[in-house]
Amino acid sequence: MSFISENQPGVCLAPDAETQAYVFNHSMIRVKDPQRSLDFYTRVLGMRLLRQVDFPEAKFSLLFLAMTAGETVPEERGARQVYTFGRQSVLELTHNWGTESDDSQYHNGNQDPRGFGHICFSVPDIEAACARFERLQIPFVKRLDKGMKHVAFISDPDDYWVEIVQADLLADLGQ
Amino acid sequence: MSFISENQPGVCLAPDAETQAYVFNHSMIRVKDPQRSLDFYTRVLGMRLLRQVDFPEAKFSLLFLAMTAGETVPEERGARQVYTFGRQSVLELTHNWGTESDDSQYHNGNQDPRGFGHICFSVPDIEAACARFERLQIPFVKRLDKGMKHVAFISDPDDYWVEIVQADLLADLGQ
Repeated sequence: MSFISENQPGVCLAPDAETQAYVFNHSMIRVKDPQRSLDFYTRVLGMRLLRQVDFPEAKFSLLFLAMTAGETVPEERGARQVYTFGRQSVLELTHNWGTESDDSQYHNGNQDPRGFGHICFSVPDIEAACARFERLQIPFVKRLDKGMKHVAFISDPDDYWVEIVQADLLADLGQ
Repeated sequence: MSFISENQPGVCLAPDAETQAYVFNHSMIRVKDPQRSLDFYTRVLGMRLLRQVDFPEAKFSLLFLAMTAGETVPEERGARQVYTFGRQSVLELTHNWGTESDDSQYHNGNQDPRGFGHICFSVPDIEAACARFERLQIPFVKRLDKGMKHVAFISDPDDYWVEIVQADLLADLGQ
């Protein structure tokens, strides 16, 4: 059964006021080769690199990206970092140094053992976006003409799935 | 070496204008028991259930949540769904029917095979937030007094890691 009501088992309808200043800041995935991942997320999806934070002793780097169109992104290091950790919808990529040249491969969560599934970008014109991904020779997990209507999946350089949707075509999705 | 410059190998500094209307909409994780997960994400973290979308034939449901303080969230079904798929920083929970009563367990990505790592919430006062999580008896993966300063990790009902940060304390993080 479909529902509009939020009053479902488990749902707290009046959360502690303290929580209402919390921000869902980022999701983190590990990547093998930051150069390939930065190319994918900046060139193909248009994200901006907000910060790279290096930890030489532990031999890893964190890369934070977001869509920033229309936003003022601080250039000064400290302010930039506070902006990065205070805003919504950031993608964090973790690079453990050396993985770009070894034979390791990260797990995308969609084969056993399953867990994480995908990230999703909403686009204004999904036909145009998918045609663009085809031109750029981005691998598709699911094209528009297969299965669920108005939903596509491409894959990133580590084979993480990236769902592509167009919000106004999904008004009637599901039950 | 640290850097402020975005001009790193792989980075596209002038992405296709078409991409600048893309929105990083959501991250999806599978959950075993939606009642427990909804309790955690609404009561403990203050998220709001935007939509549940059921697929009875395929026996799964999708639950979409977000922090919505200060936002006008449409009540009408179609408008609510378009809002859900058009905004930033949504968390999608996938419930494959029956998992709540079988012995399956999802993989949080932090043991082999690794991949996905965590989601992160930014809070205005991390000491207060962590004290609140202690009162609520939320399990900690890492408390503030261990390891990296100003960063905590709690775990959700499926053992996915949820990082907790306070943006203005992280201005000097890393190199």
